[in-house]
Amino acid sequence: MRDGSLDRFLAPAAIAIIGASPDSARIRGRLLHLLRENGYSGKLYPVNPSYPEIAGVPCFPSVGAIGQPVDLALIAIPAETVLPALEDCAAAGVGHAVIISSGFAEQGGAQTGLQHEIAALARRTGLRVCGPNAEGFHNDVAHVAATFSPAVEVKPGEQRLEASPRRVGVVAQSGGMGFALYNRGRALGLAFSSIVSTGNEADLTASEFFAHLAQDRATSVILLFLESVRDPAVFLAAAAAAAERGKPVIGVKIGRSAAGERAARSHTASMAGWNAAYDAVFAEHGIIRADDPDEAVAIAAAFATAPTAQGPRVAVVTASGGAGAWAADVLAGAGLMLPELSPELQQAIQAFIPAYGSARNPVDITAQAVLTGGLLRAAELLSDSAEIDAVLVVVSLASEKRMAIDIAALKALVARQAKPLLFYSYTLPSSLAKKALAEAGLTIHTDLGAVAQAMAALVRRGGYARPRPIARSSGRAPIRAALERVGGALSEYDAKQLLAEAGIAMPPHRLVTDAAGLDAAVEELGFPLALKIQSPDIPHKTEVGGVRLGIADTAALRQGYRDMLAELRRRRPDARLQGVLLQPMAPPGVEVILGTIRDPGFGPLMMIGAGGVMTELFRDVVYRLAPVDVDGARRMLGELHIARLLEGFRGAPPVDIEALAALVAQLSQFAAEHRDLVQEVELNPVIVHRAGAGCTIVDALLTIARAGGEDGNRRR
Amino acid sequence: MRDGSLDRFLAPAAIAIIGASPDSARIRGRLLHLLRENGYSGKLYPVNPSYPEIAGVPCFPSVGAIGQPVDLALIAIPAETVLPALEDCAAAGVGHAVIISSGFAEQGGAQTGLQHEIAALARRTGLRVCGPNAEGFHNDVAHVAATFSPAVEVKPGEQRLEASPRRVGVVAQSGGMGFALYNRGRALGLAFSSIVSTGNEADLTASEFFAHLAQDRATSVILLFLESVRDPAVFLAAAAAAAERGKPVIGVKIGRSAAGERAARSHTASMAGWNAAYDAVFAEHGIIRADDPDEAVAIAAAFATAPTAQGPRVAVVTASGGAGAWAADVLAGAGLMLPELSPELQQAIQAFIPAYGSARNPVDITAQAVLTGGLLRAAELLSDSAEIDAVLVVVSLASEKRMAIDIAALKALVARQAKPLLFYSYTLPSSLAKKALAEAGLTIHTDLGAVAQAMAALVRRGGYARPRPIARSSGRAPIRAALERVGGALSEYDAKQLLAEAGIAMPPHRLVTDAAGLDAAVEELGFPLALKIQSPDIPHKTEVGGVRLGIADTAALRQGYRDMLAELRRRRPDARLQGVLLQPMAPPGVEVILGTIRDPGFGPLMMIGAGGVMTELFRDVVYRLAPVDVDGARRMLGELHIARLLEGFRGAPPVDIEALAALVAQLSQFAAEHRDLVQEVELNPVIVHRAGAGCTIVDALLTIARAGGEDGNRRR
Repeated sequence: MRDGSLDRFLAPAAIAIIGASPDSARIRGRLLHLLRENGYSGKLYPVNPSYPEIAGVPCFPSVGAIGQPVDLALIAIPAETVLPALEDCAAAGVGHAVIISSGFAEQGGAQTGLQHEIAALARRTGLRVCGPNAEGFHNDVAHVAATFSPAVEVKPGEQRLEASPRRVGVVAQSGGMGFALYNRGRALGLAFSSIVSTGNEADLTASEFFAHLAQDRATSVILLFLESVRDPAVFLAAAAAAAERGKPVIGVKIGRSAAGERAARSHTASMAGWNAAYDAVFAEHGIIRADDPDEAVAIAAAFATAPTAQGPRVAVVTASGGAGAWAADVLAGAGLMLPELSPELQQAIQAFIPAYGSARNPVDITAQAVLTGGLLRAAELLSDSAEIDAVLVVVSLASEKRMAIDIAALKALVARQAKPLLFYSYTLPSSLAKKALAEAGLTIHTDLGAVAQAMAALVRRGGYARPRPIARSSGRAPIRAALERVGGALSEYDAKQLLAEAGIAMPPHRLVTDAAGLDAAVEELGFPLALKIQSPDIPHKTEVGGVRLGIADTAALRQGYRDMLAELRRRRPDARLQGVLLQPMAPPGVEVILGTIRDPGFGPLMMIGAGGVMTELFRDVVYRLAPVDVDGARRMLGELHIARLLEGFRGAPPVDIEALAALVAQLSQFAAEHRDLVQEVELNPVIVHRAGAGCTIVDALLTIARAGGEDGNRRR
Repeated sequence: MRDGSLDRFLAPAAIAIIGASPDSARIRGRLLHLLRENGYSGKLYPVNPSYPEIAGVPCFPSVGAIGQPVDLALIAIPAETVLPALEDCAAAGVGHAVIISSGFAEQGGAQTGLQHEIAALARRTGLRVCGPNAEGFHNDVAHVAATFSPAVEVKPGEQRLEASPRRVGVVAQSGGMGFALYNRGRALGLAFSSIVSTGNEADLTASEFFAHLAQDRATSVILLFLESVRDPAVFLAAAAAAAERGKPVIGVKIGRSAAGERAARSHTASMAGWNAAYDAVFAEHGIIRADDPDEAVAIAAAFATAPTAQGPRVAVVTASGGAGAWAADVLAGAGLMLPELSPELQQAIQAFIPAYGSARNPVDITAQAVLTGGLLRAAELLSDSAEIDAVLVVVSLASEKRMAIDIAALKALVARQAKPLLFYSYTLPSSLAKKALAEAGLTIHTDLGAVAQAMAALVRRGGYARPRPIARSSGRAPIRAALERVGGALSEYDAKQLLAEAGIAMPPHRLVTDAAGLDAAVEELGFPLALKIQSPDIPHKTEVGGVRLGIADTAALRQGYRDMLAELRRRRPDARLQGVLLQPMAPPGVEVILGTIRDPGFGPLMMIGAGGVMTELFRDVVYRLAPVDVDGARRMLGELHIARLLEGFRGAPPVDIEALAALVAQLSQFAAEHRDLVQEVELNPVIVHRAGAGCTIVDALLTIARAGGEDGNRRR
């Protein structure tokens, strides 16, 4: 970010509208109208040489002709005329511009060049530019509707709900979606600070607006809609700033399905896809991922109206057995727990509900007890109980005539809430009910899947701990020198040598380059043995018959060695032969895959996956930004589906999670320390033995980039 | 079903309201009001000795006093007075009753007895009873609002949308949820036939109403909300009838999270839980499962307005790049394909969209092309193309002022649609837009996750084939006799003998009862061998050191045999020893688990799961009603996550799917044929070798019930 603050951008004292028109059916005609309709109180200067005034406001032939300070120019003119208009703005000392016009990089060809010129102008003149191809922004606090979005149209007689003073700020790389989230959030009763559409980001980026909202006092919750982050370093700093302030961030990252199409050379990279880095960044900074618009808005509403949860134990309170049971299923499906209540708590609830109700959890107070205030009594008892971390009230709020809940009492309960209290209506709620609950400080959720995700988000956020800074080690000279000497994909043997030099414990192994060396190797290693061909030209050893396992005696060893070399000569006469690697067969254990890859934007990522086919078949894989420390590694392991396998599954003893976590930390630190050189590491499989017995790195791949290559240094 | 038809129940010519009251704040006071308000045209007889008339309608002291034929009695009086009232009804020749009153089996204790008396009365008198604890029903075709649900309240000035003449019928074991689905469906623009709340089902069951809707001409789509099916045979017949008529059924089965709490003796049974049978039944009859209310309604709307899809290839047409990309991600997440369009099709679309749009898929026609009719032109081109099976239009329909789509043209397109065409609005749609699209024959979806599930449902339904009837084999006398001789859990050896007798190919094995028998066994089987202890008292052999694998020579065999017996004597001196089973080590392959379990209601189920830990860790398991034929078995295998593993994963050769499918069919037929005897079978693991090489049943469990035990015969 070149500029310290975007306050003036979002709350300008004077706005010029370049291309203003009296025709409100056109985009450029709607800007003036929407600004005024939404109560903009600063100065407005339409700019269009064709009109002396528009809608009673004096119109200027150019920005230069205004002769007064202008903070923001909204530009809605044909693409070809945008650059001169920006020059005028810069000359007139305008601080910021939003280019609404389309037809730049999104069109490709020569128009991309035009966009580059805009970027160059911004750099040269200091004029900060949002867009092009942007939908503008809306500052709902300062009443600046600098957009043509229909979402800011003022609807006569519309009743505006604000369930909470905690405002939501939105940064969106799609104006349509950004304002749609505003539209949906408003309907739910959320208050917003600013919604910003960033368009093609010739100059100002989503990350910069994110950074602004992270420190903006008016914004309590941040919603990001991302297609691609252009400036990872700025994004990471913004995420860290939001995390530091305890400001919840909900992140939508689209383009996930396209990831599968990306061809990638090796297994780890192909699993990573484009989104692994985002998953890693989101996890590191506690950004909550939302998978559809209802989820995004429901999670925002939960953060705006409720505290985070201190654990996963949810109680459901309902007046409909069926709806309560369904809610329980969906909550459990989202990973939450619904413990049966203690006899004491059940007794306390049974005291005020009919005999045909249930106090077990779901707590079915029955329709009758709703009329006598049972809903709030139950919610209050549960909120006050140490058995429960959060409460979901499941009711029908469809009636436009009756409101069975005492709103004053609910308001008091909400005001002192220390645990999440969310309301879900299984019928579509009436405006009467929405208004009443908003007065009490609550929104009414209507999407059961989404409210379950929102509840899960409150739990995850409650358990989120910012990672401690990890001390960078000194960067040992010998290993750096060794890494600098090589390049490309190394043989397994070379990879193991280098990783061992970096301090990563490798199992015993010997490279044998002629049959005469076999005996000495056996003397050192013993039987049973694995035999593996070593050649920089053979990344997939099994495909040339280059792996033999479980060799039990000398005869088999000699035979295997001869056969393997013969097979190689037959299949790949061109391949350079380094030798044959001998390695003792590893004792049994749980197989995992460890790896690091280098994201072009976010730098090195640490990856852990379930071993064998499970990583790919079940997508059982977790990513983090490297480095991670041992605690972070342990948390990563805990997120795998196979965590239960590591902890001792179906009577099996637990494996050496400590050794595995230490290895993960070590490997991630190696990748982070030498991020300019280490392109990719894959340890596959790593066999984790029973507790105390460590792990065995069975195979290792290491790919070294040319020094200074790509953009591995970006994060430093 | 004792009665052939429920027509008269759902469309009565005369209704008595027992417990009618002028106080419309009370449930029993609302019945008369809601019936009249919704335009009931038959005769209404309030029954209450306290009033001469209610709201201008003459009131009777008892049903007997009416002196006119009554088709239906609605009963809303205290639980204790219900039984005499029913006696009166029966005496007066009333055909049907709905008991609205609560306080019966749901309360437990003595009240359960009261409910049993109601059931007995129904059986004795022929009076068919719905409830107790029911919310009544609403027949929206015949205008019979026989319920107190607020969902049928008539809202003055409310505009009622009917996007399609295909009506949805609802049967719900929770009145709250049944009417909530009606409430939500109405808001979307769906038309309904009847919504029935079945309450405690003392007499009439959800299955009976399901059977009614399956043959009801007014009902085109059926929505079921189920807690527990009381009469599996009736349910299965209804499902088969609906499938035969090609009537889509959407099934919600709640209580899934409670399944985990059920303790079960063996692995297969514990995986099955309560819901395996429902999953199997749903799969067999093409019932589409819905996981939350939005999904249920969205899927119903899709079936009501669109044909099924002939394949999974979906095109997204949008005016917002961001919203379109998000939709593509969510559709892909639901298992659908979004192929890039052919150059020809892209060119045809590019002809009418701006250069900054995209025709690849998602097709982003841009906001500008919406104004020139591009949305429909693109939708039409895609619908007519052989490249695409379904189209999702993603637009913003929030405006109350403008409707950018030519509704007449859309109506024509919908009228001739041969492929699904669904509309999703990323902003909340205006009533203007809802009305306009309903006129064209469409609903506007607002939940992206739900519309993706709806699209997937249209695809699944398009590919659904009713299973062919499977010829029952003759029930070979020798194996039946053998099964009848045993009982309880058999040893592996006994299980294998019996299964082999039933025609299931077992790998070579020998039972050895003293050390002297080892040599003969080796002569027959060769090395390497597995050694397994055999005792009816030891279901988990590994826990007593009772399994040794990979025994390679005679010395190891003798040692292993001795050690195993010593270990058994030490750990379980009480266990009856049958001997030690010797079996050659199986060649490598893909491991799976096969099993059958007997659901108390639905009878024997066939189960296939991924081998080893994957079944449980990743819930990679599929169930069907037994028997299945080879085609059905192949489809089951195709539904496993590990299907890719069977088909040859990452360069591995495909395995013998044909042999596996044949084994599945054989095992399922064994379980079905002897459903009264075979309680459970578990073949775990089964190793499937490369194509042509068959599979090896490594271990087998077989549990036999006492003849005639439980209710295994129910389905016959």
